[in-house]
Parts: sequence; C-alpha cells; structure tokens
Amino acid sequence: MVIVVKGNRQDKRVNELIRWIEAKDFTVQVNEGVQKTILGVVGDTAALDIDAISTFPAVETVKRIQEPYKKANRQMHEEDTVVEVGGRKIGGGHFQVMAGPCSVESKEQVAAIADYVKRGGAGFLRGGAFKPRSSPYAFQGLKAEGIEYLLEAKKRTGLPIVTELMSVSDLPLFDKVDIIQVGARNMQNFAMLKELGKVKKPVLLKRGMSSTVEELLLSAEYIMSGGNDEVILCERGIRTFENYTRSTLDISAVPVLKKLTHLPVIVDPSHASGRAELVESLALSAIAAGADGLLIETHNNPRCALCDGAQSLDEQGFARLMEKVNKLWAFMKSLK
Amino acid sequence: MVIVVKGNRQDKRVNELIRWIEAKDFTVQVNEGVQKTILGVVGDTAALDIDAISTFPAVETVKRIQEPYKKANRQMHEEDTVVEVGGRKIGGGHFQVMAGPCSVESKEQVAAIADYVKRGGAGFLRGGAFKPRSSPYAFQGLKAEGIEYLLEAKKRTGLPIVTELMSVSDLPLFDKVDIIQVGARNMQNFAMLKELGKVKKPVLLKRGMSSTVEELLLSAEYIMSGGNDEVILCERGIRTFENYTRSTLDISAVPVLKKLTHLPVIVDPSHASGRAELVESLALSAIAAGADGLLIETHNNPRCALCDGAQSLDEQGFARLMEKVNKLWAFMKSLK
Amino acid sequence: MVIVVKGNRQDKRVNELIRWIEAKDFTVQVNEGVQKTILGVVGDTAALDIDAISTFPAVETVKRIQEPYKKANRQMHEEDTVVEVGGRKIGGGHFQVMAGPCSVESKEQVAAIADYVKRGGAGFLRGGAFKPRSSPYAFQGLKAEGIEYLLEAKKRTGLPIVTELMSVSDLPLFDKVDIIQVGARNMQNFAMLKELGKVKKPVLLKRGMSSTVEELLLSAEYIMSGGNDEVILCERGIRTFENYTRSTLDISAVPVLKKLTHLPVIVDPSHASGRAELVESLALSAIAAGADGLLIETHNNPRCALCDGAQSLDEQGFARLMEKVNKLWAFMKSLK
Amino acid sequence: MVIVVKGNRQDKRVNELIRWIEAKDFTVQVNEGVQKTILGVVGDTAALDIDAISTFPAVETVKRIQEPYKKANRQMHEEDTVVEVGGRKIGGGHFQVMAGPCSVESKEQVAAIADYVKRGGAGFLRGGAFKPRSSPYAFQGLKAEGIEYLLEAKKRTGLPIVTELMSVSDLPLFDKVDIIQVGARNMQNFAMLKELGKVKKPVLLKRGMSSTVEELLLSAEYIMSGGNDEVILCERGIRTFENYTRSTLDISAVPVLKKLTHLPVIVDPSHASGRAELVESLALSAIAAGADGLLIETHNNPRCALCDGAQSLDEQGFARLMEKVNKLWAFMKSLK
Repeated sequence: MVIVVKGNRQDKRVNELIRWIEAKDFTVQVNEGVQKTILGVVGDTAALDIDAISTFPAVETVKRIQEPYKKANRQMHEEDTVVEVGGRKIGGGHFQVMAGPCSVESKEQVAAIADYVKRGGAGFLRGGAFKPRSSPYAFQGLKAEGIEYLLEAKKRTGLPIVTELMSVSDLPLFDKVDIIQVGARNMQNFAMLKELGKVKKPVLLKRGMSSTVEELLLSAEYIMSGGNDEVILCERGIRTFENYTRSTLDISAVPVLKKLTHLPVIVDPSHASGRAELVESLALSAIAAGADGLLIETHNNPRCALCDGAQSLDEQGFARLMEKVNKLWAFMKSLK
Repeated sequence: MVIVVKGNRQDKRVNELIRWIEAKDFTVQVNEGVQKTILGVVGDTAALDIDAISTFPAVETVKRIQEPYKKANRQMHEEDTVVEVGGRKIGGGHFQVMAGPCSVESKEQVAAIADYVKRGGAGFLRGGAFKPRSSPYAFQGLKAEGIEYLLEAKKRTGLPIVTELMSVSDLPLFDKVDIIQVGARNMQNFAMLKELGKVKKPVLLKRGMSSTVEELLLSAEYIMSGGNDEVILCERGIRTFENYTRSTLDISAVPVLKKLTHLPVIVDPSHASGRAELVESLALSAIAAGADGLLIETHNNPRCALCDGAQSLDEQGFARLMEKVNKLWAFMKSLK
Repeated sequence: MVIVVKGNRQDKRVNELIRWIEAKDFTVQVNEGVQKTILGVVGDTAALDIDAISTFPAVETVKRIQEPYKKANRQMHEEDTVVEVGGRKIGGGHFQVMAGPCSVESKEQVAAIADYVKRGGAGFLRGGAFKPRSSPYAFQGLKAEGIEYLLEAKKRTGLPIVTELMSVSDLPLFDKVDIIQVGARNMQNFAMLKELGKVKKPVLLKRGMSSTVEELLLSAEYIMSGGNDEVILCERGIRTFENYTRSTLDISAVPVLKKLTHLPVIVDPSHASGRAELVESLALSAIAAGADGLLIETHNNPRCALCDGAQSLDEQGFARLMEKVNKLWAFMKSLK
Repeated sequence: MVIVVKGNRQDKRVNELIRWIEAKDFTVQVNEGVQKTILGVVGDTAALDIDAISTFPAVETVKRIQEPYKKANRQMHEEDTVVEVGGRKIGGGHFQVMAGPCSVESKEQVAAIADYVKRGGAGFLRGGAFKPRSSPYAFQGLKAEGIEYLLEAKKRTGLPIVTELMSVSDLPLFDKVDIIQVGARNMQNFAMLKELGKVKKPVLLKRGMSSTVEELLLSAEYIMSGGNDEVILCERGIRTFENYTRSTLDISAVPVLKKLTHLPVIVDPSHASGRAELVESLALSAIAAGADGLLIETHNNPRCALCDGAQSLDEQGFARLMEKVNKLWAFMKSLK
C-alpha cells in the first residue's frame, strides 16, 4: 500500500499516521520529497482499511499495490483450477456449455429441452426454478417443483444440472443440484456467499451488473475463504448507457480474469445481449477471447417462454450454434 | 402497452399474437399502417411479460405506457405517505435526519455519538451492526452485540434506531429495531424483500448502485405487495465512470421519485460522495431538490473508524451541518 | 508521480527506468521494499507521460499525485476568478442566470424572449444560432442570421449574449458575441480550444457527456494555456444507465470543481434533465450546492420550439423560477 | 412514430397535436383506448422532432419506430458496402488490418514500423500526425512533418495510409492520405463531418466514448448525406465504471452494426483496452464476432513511445498476432 502525505516524517500529523499503522504490525517505509512524503506499507494489507487511512488529516491519496483477494489470486495458485462434476471438467483447457430454459415451466418442457440440449453436445442442463424478477407481479418460478423437474431430466439424460439459489433458506432443496448458481443481483449478498463457502459443491458466480472485476473476485474470495474452492466465474454483461442490447458484454473481462485468477471463466451471451439473434456472434467471440465455457438459453418454444423469451434460441438455433461452438473451440486449441 | 408489428391484422403472425394476448383477457386495439401495425393492449398489463411478447416473430418493438408498480405509484395514492416512528414523522412535509457511525464499534462509541447526534437535532440514530464489505477480510460488524449497543443508546437518548439487515435469518435480532435498512447491494435480494413485506415496521430501502428509478420502485413494490406499506426510499449515488467521488449522487432522482411515488425520499450524501468535505454541499442540495430527509455518517473519531472513515463528519462538523440543514429546510418551506 | 516497480534498485529493468526519467530532468526517490520498490518522481510531472512509463517492463502501476492542470488549479491561484462582462460579474460571490431559447427561430421570438428574460432578472441572453444535432436531418440553426437576431435583442434589452461556436471558421461571426459557448460534444475538440485560447472574450465550457472532472479542467487548461484566462465551467449532466432523465446531473461536480479550481462554475438543469418539470428542483439544488450561476432554457411557446422543447420553461414558468432562484441565492449567502 | 396521449380525439389538446403534425404533411392514425389514445404517425419521420412533440401538454410518451438514418441503413441498401483503396478491399467478406504507431515520431521510426507491418501482412499503415491529447502539455504530434513521413513510408512499402484529422483547416495536408480518420472525441464534431461529406476519400469514423450505436450511425449519415458514401465504422471501447481496462470494448456493437448498416465495421482493441497484453484476445474475439478489420497499435520500441506505449505491441508481438489473425479469419470464413 502506498500513501502520499503532506509534510515530512517530523510532521506531527504524519507521525501520528505512521504510529497508527505500525501499531497494527505493518512496516512503514518513509520516502521524503520536497512537499510530499510517500509511505510504503509492507505486510499483508488485505485487511487494512483504505477508508480509515484516508481520514487522517495528513493523507492525500492511498493506493493498494497488492490485490485484496488471495485464494482466488493466480499469483498464489499458478495452475488453472479445474472443476469436475459428474465426469465433466471445466477450466484448464476443458470447455463446457451449460444450456437450458431461463425458467422451468413444466416437466414436459424440461424433458424436451434436456433431450435436444444433450444431442447438441452441451455438458450441463441449466434452468431456473427460483426466478429473480424485477417486478413482484412477474412469474417467480416453479420453485421446489422446478427443481424436481430438473432432477428428472438429469435422470433421463445424465446431464448434471445448474440452477439458481435465491435464498439461503432454500439450500436444503439444492441437495442433488450439481452446481449452484448465484445470480448477478446476489453477487454481493455476502450472507449467502458465506453460506456457500460451507457447501461441498461448485458455485457458478455471476458478475453483478455494476460490479468491477475486482469485486467479482472478492465475492469469489468470500466463498473460497469459507472453504469452498470450486467457484466458476461468469461474465454476463454490465450496465452502461448503450441500450440497444440489454447489457454490454464486457468481453475484456475474459482475458483479464484469466490473468488475475486461476478459476474457470464462462460467458453468458444470452443475458448479456437479451437478443437471440446476437447470441451466436457473442458466443463465438467469447471462445476466441479465451472463455472456458458458455451459458446458453434455449427454449423449445421461445414465444411461450414465461420469461426472457426474447433471448432464447430454439432447438434448431441451438444445434446450429453448438456445431460452430465445437468447431471454433477445437480450432482455438490448435492456434495456441 | 403498445406493440409495433410487421404486417397487418390479416397477417398470420400478427393474428397469432393478437389471439395470444386476448387469451390472457386483455383487449387489443389494432391500428393498421402502410407497412406496420400498432397494437394497443388495454388492461392491467403489469403482469404481462414484455420479453415473452418480444419473441413473437411479428413483433418489432414493445413499450409499456403504464408504470409496472401499483402500490408505490402516486397515481394510485395521491397524498404523500407519512411514516411515523416513535413520534417522529417523515414525508408529507416532515423532515428527518438519521445520523450515526457507519459501523458500531463499541458501547462507548455509540453512546458518545448518540449524545451529540441528539444535541445536533437529528431524529434517528443509525449505525451498522451487520456490515456489507466487498472483502471477506474487512471488518464485518459487531452483529448482535452491535444491535445491543444501539438499543442501549436508544434507551439513553430516546432516539429510534435504524440499522441494516443482511440476512433474513437475522430478523429475530431486529425485533426492537425501529427502521430496518436494506442496503444498496441487497436492493434486488427479492427473497429478503418478500420477508420484509410481512414485517410490521418501516423499511429504509437504498437504491442499488446500478438500479434505475423504476427498479427501485419495483423493489418497494415487492415489500408493499407483501403487506408492508411503510417504505422509505433512499438515493445514495449510482455507479458511473466519474471516480473523483465514490458514486455519483443522482440528485434528479429526488424530484423524479417525488413525482412518481407517494413514499418518502431521503438522500445519503456520505456514501454517495465518500468524502466528508462534500457532505455539506450535497446535503443542502438534497434539501433544495425536495428530499424528505438525510442519512448522515458521523463519528466521534473519524480516523479510527473501522470502515468508511473518509466520509464521516466529526462532532463539530455534524453540529455545523445540522445548523445549516435546519435553516435551509425552514427556508425551503417558506419558498413553496 | 509514484511508480511501483518489481525488483529493487539494482535490478537492470528498474535501473533502466530510473535513468530514463532522470534523463528528462526529474529527480527520482527510491524506496525499496521486500518484493517491490516505490519510485517517487519529483518535478513538474504534468508533461510526463504515464503511458510511456507504463511500457517499461519493470512497472506495475503509476499514479499521479499532482493534478495535471496548472493555470486552472486552485493551488496556483487561491482566490476565485471573477469573470465580468458588460458590468455583470460571475464567480467570487457573484451569481448570474443565462437564459433563452435553445434555438434562435426568428427575430420576433428572440425579442419576445429577451424581454421577459430581462424582466425575470437574468443577466445574460443565451440562444443557439449554430445547433449541434445528432441527426443531419434535424434543424441545424439559423446560423449567421441567428446571431444577428441575438445582437438585435442585445441592443433592445442591454443583455450581453452567449451563443455556441461549432466551427473555428465561424469565429469572425462571433465578434460582437459576449461569451462564446463550447458545447459538450466539442469539449475535447482540441483544435477549437486552442483557437479560443487566442480570443479575447470569456468562454463558457460545457462538460462532455462522458468527461471526468479532470478532463473538463484539462480542456479549460487548453484555453488558459493559450492566453485566455476567462473560462466559465458548466456542469450539464453526464451519461449513465438511468434513462428517465436525458442525462444524470452530477451535482457533486459543483463542490468538487469549486475545490479544485478558481474558475466560476455554473449548472444547466435544462439539458441535464431534458424535462421542464424537473428544472426548478435541479436549479435550486445547484444553488444550494454552491454554483455561481445557471443556464436555463426558456421559450415563449415551448410546443413550437424547433428543438429541445421538452425541457423549456415558458414565460410564467421562468418568472416563477427566477423568483425562487433569487430568494434562495440570497438565503444561501446568509448561511455562510 | 408512436405517440401516447391522454384523452381521446375530441379532447382539445389531443386535437391541437394532431393538427400540428398533419400540418407538416404526415398522416396520423388515431387509436382510442379507455384512458389513453395512441397516435401512429405515418411518413418519413426522420426530420420530425421528438422533443417538440413532447412539449404538447397531451403527450405522455413518444417513440420512433423507424431508424432516423437512411443512407447508412441496411434496409435501404441490402448488400455490404465494400470500400476499396489502392487495390485493398474492406467489407463484404474482405478483411484488413490497419497497423502502426500511435504517434509518428521520426522518419526512421515510421520506416522501420512500416516495413514490419507490411511483412506481418497488414494492408494499411496507420499513424498519428495530429494527436488529440487530454492535456495541453502532452506531445501534440509532428503534424505536417508527420504526414510527410507517413507518405514516405507509403512510397517505400506501397501501404496506403490512414491518419487522423483534428481540424478542418488541416484538410489540404491530407491530399495524399488514403483514409481520413475521425477520432472518438470528434465523432460529434458536426462541422467536421459535414466537410468530410464533400471529400472524395474514405473516412474511418471512430465511435465516441459515450456514443450509442445509433449516434454513431447518425454521424456516418452526416458524412453520407453530404455525398461521401465511403465510411468505415470503428468500435474502440466505451466508457463505463470498470477501470481495469481503459475503456470497455463493446463487442456486441459488431454484430449489431452489421445488422443495422451495410458499412464495414472494424475494431480497435489497442485503444479499447489500453493494455498490450489484452490485444490478442480482443482482436481474435472481434474476428469471431464478425468484424471486417482491425486497427492495431504497434511500435518498434514501445517503451520510448511518446504516447500510448502501454497498449502497443512490439515487432515480435505484432508478427505473432498477425499469424493468429490470418488463421482465424480464414477459419471463420469456412464456418459460415
């Protein structure tokens, strides 16, 4: 941590700050300039509070030089983390597509979709049983019943399932779920993240709509510091002024995350764009950018979808997409 | 709801859409143009899904013309809602300042702050017992113990207390809390909002960092549709590219909310700016813009604050602020 | 400037960087840590290129600790700059309202508006002769003829005039204009800013829609470093995800700018909100935040305005606004 | 255009609006509802002012249903536009890389870079002679001398050249330049766009940092409506809250633009990210998303670059990139 202060070491206010930091067992290196002095704080500064330091009257600016996350940090763990579920690997050169309907609507719907998702070559079935909706009057999901249908589809197809948790109190229902999804709106629901640190199954953590890459990694750190190392990160678009697309897919987040962390990184082009006709282009660009997987929304009858139909591919669209996805992934491996 | 479609009423695809909507008991008015046709949907369209409609192949654009929130809507409830707690009113011409430390740190700290907050003329004591922090390594609050200290300070000063809930499972601890705060990061924690709909005390709902005004009102609607009408809205800054301030206070949200809803609207200049030296200017501007109250961070010893010290006023600063706040509020009343 | 590098002073790559900076006549202070070394660069670093430094392989991060603007910097010029035009002062405790139509439409229109703008107590008449419009098919302004009408209205009322320059080649037409406005879209039209540095009249510089406060000050610096010290800054809203208002008025920019610079700061609530019904609240909040003036759009017949009618006040609305504006300004002076 | 109004056709205020629109030679279709009436305006509404309509007291909302650009619109011109310069084609299945230094620094530098850019297989040499810099104290480019050096490099290598225009008054110096670049900061410098409509050479139009896709297309329309149909669009990142990268590359803009317009679309991963280590991933993702070309910054000695060194690839990095770029482009063609 670097702190720029007014005055030099003899200055009473500067001295007060130095003693405060040293009292917390950090070493402070003092570098005096003409008008300003630079303090370098040595030690594990992750727990040192930038805001508290800012309040000292001598302080001009404070800047961290070390990332505040540890377990998620690639510097602490050089090799890629590979998450394995039901024999399927993701990360470290392994690629997976997780596909299915935004909302689980009926047993028949999930069964039909699971069948063609499997035929298309996806590794996981995903579907929403609990649905986060902006409006209390919109369809909120089939809940426990929805999870039942997903589990039946899993039995039928052998595809492991991914579904979203909206409340810690629902955790018992997720016992047989393979990957628990944390939605964008709950990325900083810290109480939930802490609970997921105690769970023994992988967590798919979606980036919040206005969260920085660093905040995403800190949320992963909440889960990991609780004891659960199997976190898959998902870029799903951030909120900007552009409103042609629902969110703006931050494609740069893929190589940035691959550099900063060892965790697998996947991309959700369906939610990012909110438009089915853009999904293929964005899915392919995500692979080219280095993503370890994709989250794709598909529906056997998009116009009847109870939510988010606009962004869903139908069966044919999904099959066409998968063909290109698989070819491009193989090609990108050859390019390295 | 207005839907623009390709083709006219005889067109098979247009016809399919019209029948689908009518099957849901809405009336569809058809207005044929040369190339496009405009459908007007009449009825309570709050529950009608824009995304589902978008998937119909004939559809070009869909636009709501009615706000999707009802109980929060001023059109349904013309007079200002006045929330009253412990004899203190907020909204409908009544102004309140809620002040205190970001984090409760000790019994002595809360007692000292509560004393001068009361002397300054604030109506409520606020302080964080459960703290939402980006990093798992940062101080997470004193939790139950913190609520104890707040309740003791309430007994001492008579000030009702406001504190943040981070998990539904902590609700029993909030039994004697006067106003439950929902933080910006939980504004769309819908499971929590639903629970708060069943609670019999006012909720202070802070706007999410990237939430629109409409989404804030829909989150209020979650609480209200559950049966709890006492919601106080709080503008606390949104996330933008400008990084001189921590967030960008969206001052326009004040008059916009006062127009769209009957609920009280308060402003948090401390979190919005993240800088104590800006709090006074922003607090005064909020009053001039029509806010019903302020949320102010203050600390008896800002440089020791365990979090967010940079934005805290000290005792003298708070007293100076309150003097101006009270004078300006009185003046603005005379201006109407 | 603080540079964090990998390795210590003896490291070849660190050494190379130090010599490169010293060759440019700066002093480098070296502060060695365990893994990283911190370099403090002493001297006038405004011209030192952060990006060039970033390319050195040893560099981890670079951070300026001095603002890169000088003439606009309050540290270099403590007292407020007061701009005086036609006996009217702005800045340093002097407040002015500049009002008029978005577009000059006819001689009669400008005359009528100028009359009531003066009656309302505004100090300046503003109106657009050259209009920046997103679409080439929208009305582009009356150009030279529009300036003529403004000058006639000036003769009639004595109000100095403010109007926007869109091309350096039009400068000769601005000979009798009192204040030249640079619009948000041209805030970083550096060729134009340089020309305005040579002009002997005040420049009203509007903040770009996605410009930081620092970039606004650097654009002012372009004008000032060319020899023209009379720059008035204008906050007019920034672009964010919120789309209820046209832009998001960054009210914090007012106290921030007043702290960083000695230049006068005014606010344009009409363009910021794009909604006439919000202008009053935002104008009053700007005064409470410390603004030195306002830019208000008004039109004798808003529904016929050739552009931007939605945000214009009519004569009665303007008169009502001015009454409150003047009272609040007087009150705020008493509050200090 | 669809207008939602309060009241029905007989309402005086509604009637006044209808007559105002009809007086401009548009047809108005009236669709009466219970509380609200929907007006459909038929005709070429590009020139009809949404803001003027909003001012009518009866109006609730107005929405365009036709894009406001014509010549740039794919609906008016189905086949891809192919821009051809010096035998090199871009668009319509033809791909080009434009590469070179951010700033032209010396004759030797440009010659050296041009040589290896050509060897790498780029089709164009780009380099900045006039440099838009936020600070007046930063290096502003070699100007006329820089263009000389570029022209010498063109003679030497046969590569056509691309360079940025910052002021219409410099146009005579661009006589032998092959493609004129309009920078992001000048995307809405409408006076310049109009002049470029009269020029007989292609224009490379970069998207403004806070411009929507629609505004970019309207700026292209300014050039095209002036008579110059050869516009190449460039996505170069937009401004968001995320600050790990300099801008956020809006990768979705590529497929969106390819759908809305027939003009060629290229991507600038160097400026978007501001980090050399991200350029490869972003360049490849742009190709996978459907871009017609790339703008790549490269420098023979990045750490001496007078500006933007941080984002420049060196000779080896550029060669490696080009190899992958060419392979991926060939592969993507085979995928269609």
